Amino acid sequence: MVYPRISGLIAATFTPYDASGALDVSLIPKLVTRLREQGVKGVFIAGTTGESASLLLSEKQQLIAAYAPFNDEEFNVIVMLSGTSQQEAILLAKAAREQGIYGTAVTAPYYFRPSSVSQLVEYLVPIADAAGDLPLYFYHIPLLTRVDLSMLDLLDQVRDRIPNFAGIKYTHHDLMEFNRCLRFDGGRYDVLWGWDELFLAGLAMGARGAVGSTYNFAAPLYLRILEAYRKGDMDTALLLQQKSIDFISLYATYGGPAAGKAILSLCGYDFGQFRPPVVSLSPERKQALRRDLENLGFFSDIGY
Amino acid sequence: MVYPRISGLIAATFTPYDASGALDVSLIPKLVTRLREQGVKGVFIAGTTGESASLLLSEKQQLIAAYAPFNDEEFNVIVMLSGTSQQEAILLAKAAREQGIYGTAVTAPYYFRPSSVSQLVEYLVPIADAAGDLPLYFYHIPLLTRVDLSMLDLLDQVRDRIPNFAGIKYTHHDLMEFNRCLRFDGGRYDVLWGWDELFLAGLAMGARGAVGSTYNFAAPLYLRILEAYRKGDMDTALLLQQKSIDFISLYATYGGPAAGKAILSLCGYDFGQFRPPVVSLSPERKQALRRDLENLGFFSDIGY
Amino acid sequence: MVYPRISGLIAATFTPYDASGALDVSLIPKLVTRLREQGVKGVFIAGTTGESASLLLSEKQQLIAAYAPFNDEEFNVIVMLSGTSQQEAILLAKAAREQGIYGTAVTAPYYFRPSSVSQLVEYLVPIADAAGDLPLYFYHIPLLTRVDLSMLDLLDQVRDRIPNFAGIKYTHHDLMEFNRCLRFDGGRYDVLWGWDELFLAGLAMGARGAVGSTYNFAAPLYLRILEAYRKGDMDTALLLQQKSIDFISLYATYGGPAAGKAILSLCGYDFGQFRPPVVSLSPERKQALRRDLENLGFFSDIGY
Amino acid sequence: MVYPRISGLIAATFTPYDASGALDVSLIPKLVTRLREQGVKGVFIAGTTGESASLLLSEKQQLIAAYAPFNDEEFNVIVMLSGTSQQEAILLAKAAREQGIYGTAVTAPYYFRPSSVSQLVEYLVPIADAAGDLPLYFYHIPLLTRVDLSMLDLLDQVRDRIPNFAGIKYTHHDLMEFNRCLRFDGGRYDVLWGWDELFLAGLAMGARGAVGSTYNFAAPLYLRILEAYRKGDMDTALLLQQKSIDFISLYATYGGPAAGKAILSLCGYDFGQFRPPVVSLSPERKQALRRDLENLGFFSDIGY
Repeated sequence: MVYPRISGLIAATFTPYDASGALDVSLIPKLVTRLREQGVKGVFIAGTTGESASLLLSEKQQLIAAYAPFNDEEFNVIVMLSGTSQQEAILLAKAAREQGIYGTAVTAPYYFRPSSVSQLVEYLVPIADAAGDLPLYFYHIPLLTRVDLSMLDLLDQVRDRIPNFAGIKYTHHDLMEFNRCLRFDGGRYDVLWGWDELFLAGLAMGARGAVGSTYNFAAPLYLRILEAYRKGDMDTALLLQQKSIDFISLYATYGGPAAGKAILSLCGYDFGQFRPPVVSLSPERKQALRRDLENLGFFSDIGY
Repeated sequence: MVYPRISGLIAATFTPYDASGALDVSLIPKLVTRLREQGVKGVFIAGTTGESASLLLSEKQQLIAAYAPFNDEEFNVIVMLSGTSQQEAILLAKAAREQGIYGTAVTAPYYFRPSSVSQLVEYLVPIADAAGDLPLYFYHIPLLTRVDLSMLDLLDQVRDRIPNFAGIKYTHHDLMEFNRCLRFDGGRYDVLWGWDELFLAGLAMGARGAVGSTYNFAAPLYLRILEAYRKGDMDTALLLQQKSIDFISLYATYGGPAAGKAILSLCGYDFGQFRPPVVSLSPERKQALRRDLENLGFFSDIGY
Repeated sequence: MVYPRISGLIAATFTPYDASGALDVSLIPKLVTRLREQGVKGVFIAGTTGESASLLLSEKQQLIAAYAPFNDEEFNVIVMLSGTSQQEAILLAKAAREQGIYGTAVTAPYYFRPSSVSQLVEYLVPIADAAGDLPLYFYHIPLLTRVDLSMLDLLDQVRDRIPNFAGIKYTHHDLMEFNRCLRFDGGRYDVLWGWDELFLAGLAMGARGAVGSTYNFAAPLYLRILEAYRKGDMDTALLLQQKSIDFISLYATYGGPAAGKAILSLCGYDFGQFRPPVVSLSPERKQALRRDLENLGFFSDIGY
Repeated sequence: MVYPRISGLIAATFTPYDASGALDVSLIPKLVTRLREQGVKGVFIAGTTGESASLLLSEKQQLIAAYAPFNDEEFNVIVMLSGTSQQEAILLAKAAREQGIYGTAVTAPYYFRPSSVSQLVEYLVPIADAAGDLPLYFYHIPLLTRVDLSMLDLLDQVRDRIPNFAGIKYTHHDLMEFNRCLRFDGGRYDVLWGWDELFLAGLAMGARGAVGSTYNFAAPLYLRILEAYRKGDMDTALLLQQKSIDFISLYATYGGPAAGKAILSLCGYDFGQFRPPVVSLSPERKQALRRDLENLGFFSDIGY
């Protein structure tokens, strides 16, 4: 099967919790509505940003059910299926199919780590089977999984083994391989770019679709980069990309993913804290972050 | 609380599956009975060897229930609680307490990885709380978790934060740190040695208890090493340790953990295959392994 | 001191040997003349491509002397000064000054590796002193040095310590940091981009100058990328960059740096073999490489 | 050729500098005399402790000449030949032969790093040739070289290629491989143990000879460990090893190799500072180290 390529922005969503830390899916509709209005093309749920590794199977099933009603031709809901357990991935693939969302994604298992592409493929096949005709993306994020296999070899091996293989969510620094994957076998696979701070570099190297956490609250900024890029106005595109770099660099000093969730909250969508081991921001730190972002002009840059 | 130190061998058990790959706890009693007869002092369940990362929460709960009846003063059942999810670890700690097994263990979370000891401690505290007065071991295995924090700093920080912290299952190569942990604060913490192939090196550096997968089928060999060591007969101890090295080196060429499970099967305890991504041995490979082990004298060395 | 930014291409030269493996500087003038004609703006000698780590001090001194006559306002000769030995770097910095070449560069020492920026700065200061008013670049290549310190912190710390610090030759994948270094302190430092295969990504993220080994023989291709980029014709720029990616991917399968030297030879500049441990191509492999490159259209792409 | 195995302690010497940082070989005889009196069996010069990577070729030649007069049947002088440059290693091998010292050693080149054993062997062959019938040791220290190839495969491949290959200086944590190398091909190769703080673990796993930096000043302590081990008095051996661990742990907090050189100075042999990037101790820090060592009973433990 050849699936259409995703073009534009997919938000890698944060998982919403209430004040006690329990999953609270009631927060989802408001944000999804906003994302659609802004021109975001879908959501990637229960991924890295969505704390996949900290969620119970039952919580992931609830997330799928909560996002499914928003899935349609113009808005793709993709769920990341586990982690390290093939069994869990299979159960979640079935849930994705039953709930009727757009697609699925799987990382390399990161405890017992496959040391060859064929070992990875054998792990993926039963999961892809369980997904039926839903597209399956491989989510390549060696920084976290510590599995850094050749993605070209993966595409080569899945071709005859996994008919519903759709492509790669590519969160790795090898832009040469990224470009080559985009062109593999006449360009039959989708390769989604996974670095918001390097969105423009990705575009220059051939990206058309991108998945990232800052698209939850800063999509307008990235859509302006895309527009400038398409016009060939690279100076403007770079100036805008530098705004992205500046706020991402800033919030990294506040603690990475948890600070992203804090920004979402500052934008009016309070999805709660991150679960440990990620350290969440104290109220004081959150206010300091707000002031620093204001000084940077962040809130006006994102059209807030 | 100061818990007694575990002395002798703890078998890190394999998880039993039937031919379809489903958990089959009916296989457990026969092996446990044998281990007790051989002088093994307990089992470490749902750990690395037990495929923690490939098991569902519900399967781990079944394992706890299946092993609990064998727990008594002379045979300690310890369960590894997750993985990457603090929620899952808390639920399993409660199960361990309710079922009345001896103790619990936790690895560093290995997707979002703590970058400081204090971050790790904050992750551990609610899990330890859930375990009540059951001892909690930290399972240090940086080769797989990619979290390599100072264990001395950990002992220092848990002292006032985690009253039921019992010690460390130490599966790392830093024998200097291992020895220092054993002596920390007058020796109040247990530090279990995690390398079967270096059992003698561990003894020389102060180990008294050890956890390992080959104690499932080769305990008699290691008990003879221990006996020689205690007598100061280091030449004999080394000769015996070399037998351990030789069979472990051999089966490593057949694929590591899966080959260990194949040996268990060759010894009469068929616990099924490993789950992917681990690659299990084909029947032909298993027979080749048997012949190679026979040529090595393995089965007589382990008193089989 | 604020030095001018280098704009355009700097060729990271290969070191010329005769058939016996001895340094043969007589091969240099012909290539340099060609590079100048093509519009290349300078050479980076005795760097990674130039086998710094395999050269004797005396050989590096000969290289400086051999390239010095070609140094002028339109063609910058920059030499990499060692390696791991501060003493050697100091001696070479003096030679660079005496011979009157443009500038110098230093990597992080890669046996005893600095673990902090301040440790690195203390290592650099006496070398920079010895270079007098010649500019000193830090050559950041963590893939080989295994030293991955913050380049922003380095710029911050050298500001008051090293007046002749000119900037960074940036051969690392962190395009966000690359861009931030370009903008550091109002843009006072030069940051040269070190990945030929990602030349376009570098441009998109702000690069104006680049250092690379394929500029020795394929400069015309990259100058066309630069031209397309400046016009905002990103589709053409990407098509051309893909030609770069394709031949670099191809020759990587023939063995990396040694294959690059083989291509140089195929273009008429026979600089001999690489020294071990790098494995050079056999004559047969070299002819196979030629055929593969011809099939790719490489020689016409580079205007040969 | 099969060379005799080295038994006992080899001191990995520090390189002596005067106050200006220049090599000062006049300091060597006094220390060597003392080492011989204490029962040390030789020296390993210009190695890691001897700052190989920071020395000029000419300085290494001077070191060989300075140590050569002390080489005899009871005291082996071994020199480490480079680093990353095969040419330099060849020149130094010739110097070693001409000066008549006992043997030579080579690390894996650590800038261009060999990715296979055969690549490493091709690099070694011309160096071994230049050493004539002097024994050549491979110095395995992956922590610093980042080359972690199979030492068993190396022994297998050198057997027919390098007649003067003597064995391995093994500074790696894999005690299983260490033991297997000792037994390779009937035990024809020498394998020297490279961790002072784990001297006893090495003995337990088969070591007979050891190379280390603390044998420069603390040989008597290690000889007592050896004596206890030989008697089978493992409790005493461990108590003594713990003294080694305690002072090594202590001085590590003062900065590793430079602190070792400071201890040598406190023992009456002032060999000067380390060269950058290694950070040397200030006079104040050195006095603090002295006091801490006194509190530990260090100076009496080493029979000072």
